[in-house]
Amino acid sequence: MEKYDIAIIGSGSAGYVAAIRGADLGKKVLIIEKGELGGTCLNRGCIPTKALLHSAEIYSHFNNSEEIGIKAENISYDLNVIQKRKNDIINKLVTGIDLLLKSRKIVLKKGCGKIVDEHTIEINHEGNIERINAENIIIATGSEPLMPPCFKFDGKNIITSKEALEVKEIPKDILIIGSGAIGVEFAIFFSSFGAKVTLVEMMPQIIPALRDKKMAKLIQRILNKKGIDVITGTKVENIEIKEDGRVFSTLSNGKTIQNEKVLVSIGRKLNSEGIGLEDVGVKVENGRIIVNEEMRTNIPNIFAVGDVIGGLLLAHKAQREGIVVAEVISGLNTKMDYRVVPSAIFSSPEISAVGLTEEEAKEKGIEIITGEIPFASNGKALTMNETEGLVKVVAKKDTKEIIGAQIVGPDASVLIAELALSVEKNLTLMDVANTIHTHPTLPEVIMEAAKAALGEAIHKAKR
Amino acid sequence: MEKYDIAIIGSGSAGYVAAIRGADLGKKVLIIEKGELGGTCLNRGCIPTKALLHSAEIYSHFNNSEEIGIKAENISYDLNVIQKRKNDIINKLVTGIDLLLKSRKIVLKKGCGKIVDEHTIEINHEGNIERINAENIIIATGSEPLMPPCFKFDGKNIITSKEALEVKEIPKDILIIGSGAIGVEFAIFFSSFGAKVTLVEMMPQIIPALRDKKMAKLIQRILNKKGIDVITGTKVENIEIKEDGRVFSTLSNGKTIQNEKVLVSIGRKLNSEGIGLEDVGVKVENGRIIVNEEMRTNIPNIFAVGDVIGGLLLAHKAQREGIVVAEVISGLNTKMDYRVVPSAIFSSPEISAVGLTEEEAKEKGIEIITGEIPFASNGKALTMNETEGLVKVVAKKDTKEIIGAQIVGPDASVLIAELALSVEKNLTLMDVANTIHTHPTLPEVIMEAAKAALGEAIHKAKR
Repeated sequence: MEKYDIAIIGSGSAGYVAAIRGADLGKKVLIIEKGELGGTCLNRGCIPTKALLHSAEIYSHFNNSEEIGIKAENISYDLNVIQKRKNDIINKLVTGIDLLLKSRKIVLKKGCGKIVDEHTIEINHEGNIERINAENIIIATGSEPLMPPCFKFDGKNIITSKEALEVKEIPKDILIIGSGAIGVEFAIFFSSFGAKVTLVEMMPQIIPALRDKKMAKLIQRILNKKGIDVITGTKVENIEIKEDGRVFSTLSNGKTIQNEKVLVSIGRKLNSEGIGLEDVGVKVENGRIIVNEEMRTNIPNIFAVGDVIGGLLLAHKAQREGIVVAEVISGLNTKMDYRVVPSAIFSSPEISAVGLTEEEAKEKGIEIITGEIPFASNGKALTMNETEGLVKVVAKKDTKEIIGAQIVGPDASVLIAELALSVEKNLTLMDVANTIHTHPTLPEVIMEAAKAALGEAIHKAKR
Repeated sequence: MEKYDIAIIGSGSAGYVAAIRGADLGKKVLIIEKGELGGTCLNRGCIPTKALLHSAEIYSHFNNSEEIGIKAENISYDLNVIQKRKNDIINKLVTGIDLLLKSRKIVLKKGCGKIVDEHTIEINHEGNIERINAENIIIATGSEPLMPPCFKFDGKNIITSKEALEVKEIPKDILIIGSGAIGVEFAIFFSSFGAKVTLVEMMPQIIPALRDKKMAKLIQRILNKKGIDVITGTKVENIEIKEDGRVFSTLSNGKTIQNEKVLVSIGRKLNSEGIGLEDVGVKVENGRIIVNEEMRTNIPNIFAVGDVIGGLLLAHKAQREGIVVAEVISGLNTKMDYRVVPSAIFSSPEISAVGLTEEEAKEKGIEIITGEIPFASNGKALTMNETEGLVKVVAKKDTKEIIGAQIVGPDASVLIAELALSVEKNLTLMDVANTIHTHPTLPEVIMEAAKAALGEAIHKAKR
């Protein structure tokens, strides 16, 4: 029986990063993968959506370029080329990860891994069974789209993000259920290429995870301007495919709407079943493997990381957990800290956030001050023709420490990095306000928002 | 005679910001402006170039979009529209600054300001002379393009950036002398719209201010790929306009090249003449007003800020000086610190830098470690089709404090903000490496570069 220091089930963001960090710290590492190397993020999540959205963004530029002095005729898109490019990018990144693993002599075995006992994993690859021995086991089996049976998924007219990524043509109209990152990104994608999009959200506001009502309203207004219908506080109670293929959806407000397709993006199911957890006694609650801040389960040499432990189902949270677990196993004194997990939605404009919103801070009883600056006051945003949105920073009233920030606007996914670092390092509004920011650039909005919170904004009219 | 707490000569980046900060701190402020409100940056510098470059960038997307699945026919540009949009943006921002000043009751007087004595300025507006009294005087007269008389500027075929901003048509071919920010940005602009561009630099490397040979070579290679000829270590010794309007330039390498236009961008002349400095005894060296870290000249109540004091001729350095001088005059204990002045060049891809380069650190005898990560390893860059370039961080070997960074790549002007904050706050490689960065985003390259310097990069093959 082959022996490893670390055996990892799942090669997604959490798994492959744990493998690399573990190998770099001198461990003999095995990864077991039943599907594609790279997991959901790379093959069916973050990366393919961004590839599709880039084509959508450029296509939108084409259709809105007369005002910047560029003209073209017969503007068209070819979804085959767009899909091929997306697949090429996935392949390139999968090959890249393969090389990263090989260069570290990490062993990759195809097959389903099942924990047999604390130190043994059984790998089933198309019926061929192999057992390996591992000093430490890391479960990184991820998640998949939640498909409530009542929605009668057929993978053609009623679909999840998995099928949405593979569309061969843009539907005339589409209903998207759930306005999280996936729902909003696909709304932008389909709408950019001409589909009539309706986005239905059960909660009272769009993107419920972004707990700032003003930001949520701003985003809803932006989506509306793009022609996307947003219906909040409303459930989809029934979905039915008629004979002509049209999908009829009954909403809790009594209305029925019909569409060519319905995309269900209401959450994800954690992959904690069928991997032997019950046999070996790993504690699971509501599908979620329970771990401590070292990523350790109740069985001391079995760890779990990534989506399967719940929390924010984000690739970068998973990657950080992968690093933490590899360092813990290697004897370093590393712990997972969830205080600073930024997030982004790649709509246009983009949306991003880190730390606490104003509402969350107030709920926690923290006395705060906030600063807001719209992108419309920023010279670079004006030259880019992207003036919609704003930056909001949230800081403690007494110490002026920055404890959160939310951004809607151009390059929000990039801009949030400066604020994530600020929250991580407990920097103050003064720290950001007094750091020279290049002119003319988008990050000046962050500097001005910090100044605004201090009552020192330069580019804001005095009342 | 009207009396002011602060009178400022010049309403550019340094002047208007000093005025606003001064007014916000309770001072009665006058600005004297002989030309357009907003100065060079807004009217003839940062902003108009960015507006033109945005159209150029989108036009390039149009011409390179087939691989991302977007097609169009008869792609064309209309320079009139591009110029009109640029002018509209300038007007919008000028109006904005005017509102910022008015909302603070800052008085704006048109005319040339001349210091008569320590407390008196004479304002000459088209022959109407007025004198005002000021407790404090701030000189913020800026700079203008350097025009060596030997180059026989005619404003038509032999031009500076001022005329280049107003072009009515794209020349067939153009020689650009000087490869600083202005030269490189116009090279990109003209080349994007089809001009054959030759860029000549006297110093041995392109962008001499970026003292990193590897980065300079990378940039030169990128420009070459775009069809821009770059000739370094070469002077232009003579320029002559022939009868047919073609401009013949004789280079120090013996060659003569001919072009439709020649753009001279070899530096700027500081506007320290004709404003009464000699009469009142303000110390000037080589055109540069000498000030201390409070922006104070040798005359205690006369201050100077912005380009006219020399150093880096950057709008954000000027703005910071404007804040410092207003706070000093208002009795706050603020001092100017030039350790962290980031900079950016809005080429495509963009270029940015902050703090020390590897070469500069070594010259200062600092023991350093560096980390480099190419954008080609970044998923988001791949989806954007912008994989050229890299991030390099420079840190002290012992403490791991980040002391500099250079970026060539997509959104480099945005990305540098996180690193500027890091240098400003003496953060370490570990601080940046262990802060969770959103996936998939460009700032992950910064995190990875910090990890690379520590020998902990995940997305880098092991040798």
